[in-house]
Amino acid sequence: MLSHSDRLFPADPVTRAIARELHASVHNAPLICPHGHTDPRWFADDATFADATSVFVTSDPYILRLLHGHGVPLERLGVARRDDPSVPVADPRQGWACFAAHYHLFRGTPSRLWLDAVFADIFGFERELTPDTADTFFDRIGEALVRPEFRPRALFERFGISILATTDSASDTLEHHAAIRQSGWAGRVVPTFRPDTALDPEHADFLNELTNLARMTGEDTMTLKGYLAALQARRIGFVAAGATASDHGHPTAMTDDLAAAEFSGLFEQALRGTLQPAEAELFRAQMLTEMARMSLDDGLVMQLHAGARRGYNTELVRRYGGARGETVPQRVDFVGGLRPLLDRFGHEPNFRMILFTLDESVYARELAPLAGVFPSVWLGSPWWFHDSPEGMLRFRHHATETAGFYKYAGFVDDTRAFFSIPVRHDVARRMDASFLAHLVTQHRLTESAAFDLMQQFVSTLPQTAYRLGA
Amino acid sequence: MLSHSDRLFPADPVTRAIARELHASVHNAPLICPHGHTDPRWFADDATFADATSVFVTSDPYILRLLHGHGVPLERLGVARRDDPSVPVADPRQGWACFAAHYHLFRGTPSRLWLDAVFADIFGFERELTPDTADTFFDRIGEALVRPEFRPRALFERFGISILATTDSASDTLEHHAAIRQSGWAGRVVPTFRPDTALDPEHADFLNELTNLARMTGEDTMTLKGYLAALQARRIGFVAAGATASDHGHPTAMTDDLAAAEFSGLFEQALRGTLQPAEAELFRAQMLTEMARMSLDDGLVMQLHAGARRGYNTELVRRYGGARGETVPQRVDFVGGLRPLLDRFGHEPNFRMILFTLDESVYARELAPLAGVFPSVWLGSPWWFHDSPEGMLRFRHHATETAGFYKYAGFVDDTRAFFSIPVRHDVARRMDASFLAHLVTQHRLTESAAFDLMQQFVSTLPQTAYRLGA
Amino acid sequence: MLSHSDRLFPADPVTRAIARELHASVHNAPLICPHGHTDPRWFADDATFADATSVFVTSDPYILRLLHGHGVPLERLGVARRDDPSVPVADPRQGWACFAAHYHLFRGTPSRLWLDAVFADIFGFERELTPDTADTFFDRIGEALVRPEFRPRALFERFGISILATTDSASDTLEHHAAIRQSGWAGRVVPTFRPDTALDPEHADFLNELTNLARMTGEDTMTLKGYLAALQARRIGFVAAGATASDHGHPTAMTDDLAAAEFSGLFEQALRGTLQPAEAELFRAQMLTEMARMSLDDGLVMQLHAGARRGYNTELVRRYGGARGETVPQRVDFVGGLRPLLDRFGHEPNFRMILFTLDESVYARELAPLAGVFPSVWLGSPWWFHDSPEGMLRFRHHATETAGFYKYAGFVDDTRAFFSIPVRHDVARRMDASFLAHLVTQHRLTESAAFDLMQQFVSTLPQTAYRLGA
Repeated sequence: MLSHSDRLFPADPVTRAIARELHASVHNAPLICPHGHTDPRWFADDATFADATSVFVTSDPYILRLLHGHGVPLERLGVARRDDPSVPVADPRQGWACFAAHYHLFRGTPSRLWLDAVFADIFGFERELTPDTADTFFDRIGEALVRPEFRPRALFERFGISILATTDSASDTLEHHAAIRQSGWAGRVVPTFRPDTALDPEHADFLNELTNLARMTGEDTMTLKGYLAALQARRIGFVAAGATASDHGHPTAMTDDLAAAEFSGLFEQALRGTLQPAEAELFRAQMLTEMARMSLDDGLVMQLHAGARRGYNTELVRRYGGARGETVPQRVDFVGGLRPLLDRFGHEPNFRMILFTLDESVYARELAPLAGVFPSVWLGSPWWFHDSPEGMLRFRHHATETAGFYKYAGFVDDTRAFFSIPVRHDVARRMDASFLAHLVTQHRLTESAAFDLMQQFVSTLPQTAYRLGA
Repeated sequence: MLSHSDRLFPADPVTRAIARELHASVHNAPLICPHGHTDPRWFADDATFADATSVFVTSDPYILRLLHGHGVPLERLGVARRDDPSVPVADPRQGWACFAAHYHLFRGTPSRLWLDAVFADIFGFERELTPDTADTFFDRIGEALVRPEFRPRALFERFGISILATTDSASDTLEHHAAIRQSGWAGRVVPTFRPDTALDPEHADFLNELTNLARMTGEDTMTLKGYLAALQARRIGFVAAGATASDHGHPTAMTDDLAAAEFSGLFEQALRGTLQPAEAELFRAQMLTEMARMSLDDGLVMQLHAGARRGYNTELVRRYGGARGETVPQRVDFVGGLRPLLDRFGHEPNFRMILFTLDESVYARELAPLAGVFPSVWLGSPWWFHDSPEGMLRFRHHATETAGFYKYAGFVDDTRAFFSIPVRHDVARRMDASFLAHLVTQHRLTESAAFDLMQQFVSTLPQTAYRLGA
Repeated sequence: MLSHSDRLFPADPVTRAIARELHASVHNAPLICPHGHTDPRWFADDATFADATSVFVTSDPYILRLLHGHGVPLERLGVARRDDPSVPVADPRQGWACFAAHYHLFRGTPSRLWLDAVFADIFGFERELTPDTADTFFDRIGEALVRPEFRPRALFERFGISILATTDSASDTLEHHAAIRQSGWAGRVVPTFRPDTALDPEHADFLNELTNLARMTGEDTMTLKGYLAALQARRIGFVAAGATASDHGHPTAMTDDLAAAEFSGLFEQALRGTLQPAEAELFRAQMLTEMARMSLDDGLVMQLHAGARRGYNTELVRRYGGARGETVPQRVDFVGGLRPLLDRFGHEPNFRMILFTLDESVYARELAPLAGVFPSVWLGSPWWFHDSPEGMLRFRHHATETAGFYKYAGFVDDTRAFFSIPVRHDVARRMDASFLAHLVTQHRLTESAAFDLMQQFVSTLPQTAYRLGA
């Protein structure tokens, strides 16, 4: 029951049978993971994971945010108070018990779906996690984790991952990536160039990051010319380390194409810290266009994740630090925001942009029309709050009729929850199979086309979109 | 047929069977009605209702708005012209005949669903209301209404209502509530503190309301300090009369946390009537934060109903007065709007806010993420234009994956249409059963969890959210 | 398979059977086409259509946009480069081969659905269009097109079209419409008054259009009075030619009710070309209100198509000219935008407005509430990017509960793709049958009401909404 073979398939028996076959046709296809947040050190060091609580609870913002939202103090799960170190913190077994006591709160959420599948498929549990079974879970998971086959590289191979991209700041040394390559291990782990801190003058570490970049590249990042050259140099460094994509997490989708003098003036104010919020937004907008420009030369595929209002829950950050689930989405205008960038680079043969949204109202109204007419624009898979069965179905229902299937860049797991990568891909495959089966049952698609599309989704399209090679 | 036992359940036989059982498990559960617009006088006086037309037509804005939208002059239904008293007005039987002649216009609407169920379940009709059956309906309903078992208190008991909250202005004397308590009748009818008029300097009665509050509380409401003290005093009066919640119907979700001088300046301008629209909005924004602050002490749960553009159809109001269906929704920004209030009170243990929207695009993008991470934020049930089978399904589909089920504050009927209260709850229960059955059939939820959740929805969650006691 | 008799019907067998019967009940009903973009010259001249490529590929923006979005140079389909006439252009057979080679890209889109049905139902193909069958398709279609029964008038009759409205600029001479009437042919083809160029001071041809109108009407269009009089005269000319409606394609739904002096000042600036974008928007807003005012006298039903950001893909236009799919939707505020116009004319008995949107988030939040309470407001069918199976279902699911069924103005094909008109209507009928069957299976609608509604949708409602007479 924890992981039923028909889970997520449509109820109608005819449609379900088709979905089952479509899913089976790609069930063993390798996992292409071109966007995620695993730690490259795991694969460099290949060290043992610690315990159930640190793997599944305290490192997962989806889990922490919902428990916090129900008033569970995160220190009872094992997260230290940042504001008051004197508050006692649960040990891993206590944290796990607290988690188990609240596990029912995750009913109906993808977190529950992922965890139940991980428990069943990877650790062999047949019963639910409850307060009664909490200790058994904690012990059996702990016993498993110390075995060689549960170390990062072994799991990478067991999961059938063909490529895994991490996400790394512009000033990251990429030393773990280098160690992986030099280790002789065959697993393909590549970095992604994510320069948000270096592009956002409102970020607390903006100036530090510029200093870092100066040190790494030898450029004078206190001049606009040197700043841009340093970014370009780092991009080339990432390409050398195997990167095929950049990633940009911006609050909006605003881009611009400013005159040189205005851009230069904004940069100087950014250095002085005197930008007003609208000016900072303008600077970030211009920098997206600069990133696009650089990508014409170095070929990095540009991912844009727009619409996250980071740090929204300030109290949560104050108490426990960032990456605890404090972010909340906001409305985004892609059509207005991207116009300057698309006007300038939208038809450059070497330019490619993959768009992700937290504002689903843009799927049909904005993203599918843009992907449908701009050769450079691809659709990213449903993201974050929408990386879920219903979220995926909505994406297909809203985007397909205008953009077709062939501008879809493939599923990205976008996760640091390494153990959940197989089930996340499986959920995507099940929902895609369900959607295609729905079209087949309604005689809107032939079965042979549906089987072909399943292969496209898990293999051809992500390889093409992310320029992953064969 | 008027009220089929399988109505609203999904078509798939397996899913339908599960939905049927889930629904049956709560079919007889008492009705918790923590937000509505019934008249407390009904239960104080326990007088006979007049006739079918006044009960089901002229008092129901859903009915009036759609008939008006089809060009039916409301005087033909029995609503007097406010602008021209010389226009003849239909008598109740004529009004009913006019209603019956246009009853087909309600096909596909929840109003039709509710009325058909009321006709069948409460009055025993087996045929549809049509022009041919209009007189029969009018007569049989009229005959029933004069019987003792159709008086308000008897119906309250027959409906199985365990608690019913009315909605009352800040200056309401609550005399009917007092009369109910003093009558010895066991029915639990409580008020809700709804101070919109007192908080909105653009309301025509704003100054009158301040005068009323001064008279009732002895505070000088022409000073900001006295104004706030008067509101606080009235809140305490409502608590004494059994209220557990306040309610706020604002055009937007804007809140603020102004400096004292700015707030004070706005108040003075409000008294002089010199606020610009944006300043009036700012005043209302600040007052929401003040209400939240007061709730820390008195414990009233804060309901926010945002997004109604009241009085939009000015001609309808000019002809027939307000509450005729003249309101139209508008887009709302909850994430931006609530930030100041949540920053200040979002983690106060005693603060609770239940959010309602007319802009469904916020369910997945804003409300579920907010409820998922702020311990004080709960999700109100689908509201007004969305208090309908499809509206409820959309709510579940959009909100569940991010917020789970346990931040849902339970169904509220939000109605003055007393006879429709049982069917409204039944519709909610059927749609919840349908949604849960959908998850069970897809192996996303166990059957036992689904049965547990049905109980939560109809009992535990509303009691907890609205602090109703056991 | 190309055109299965059960296509688009719901999977559930019981629901499907009901949908099948509902669809059958209107399968042979005449096609009412009150809004479209066919060329009146076709029916005036009744000339042979040229070839498969010009009929199905190079004239269809839906096809061109998606192929362009996949990097297919449109010259390979047969579209000449406007920017560089030296680029070789494919001949029709080559263009068709290129189209066939990319036909899989349309899987899941309505274009594919329409074309497959046209190929099967009108040309008798049983196999799919593929690179292998491309030449066979091209030849057989070419052979058919030269036969008399494939000429425009014969097809018009074969398709069972009872009325067909074209869309014509304010300065159109309507000579082809006159020729049709004078020819003695019984087909009813009428114009629609679409004065966008004359109302939009930002349009490159605004002043030219004013000159045209001056020449045609004898009015001095360089004065506001003459300008308005000329528009009024042209409206009357359209009415005389059989028009029953005007149409307005505006970027937003903004209307206004300006004081005379302000309006006059904007007009003078429009003549001088000195309007700022916000002022141009204000001028268009005022002109919508003027059009409404004129409709009180001449009775033209006012269609508003809001939310298209025309010319968005500037590079596509630069290379190949307009009408290649370069438009992208944007968010629209109907409730705020229409308020001035509705305040003034929303209750005029002779005023009627049919609203179309590219922003689906307004169906439930704005359009259904407006249509539900303003007697003048009707709901247009799902439009452009949403004129598709899923788009139609979303419209019904979102609009019905608030607006009912009887403010729906009927399906409009909105197309210049003449051959696709029958299948577009058929898709609408199938989706309506599916939605009604869904309600019947859930006991929310009686079967007899569903059959009645099918008739309403295909006949009574469009005739009423567009004032088409019997």
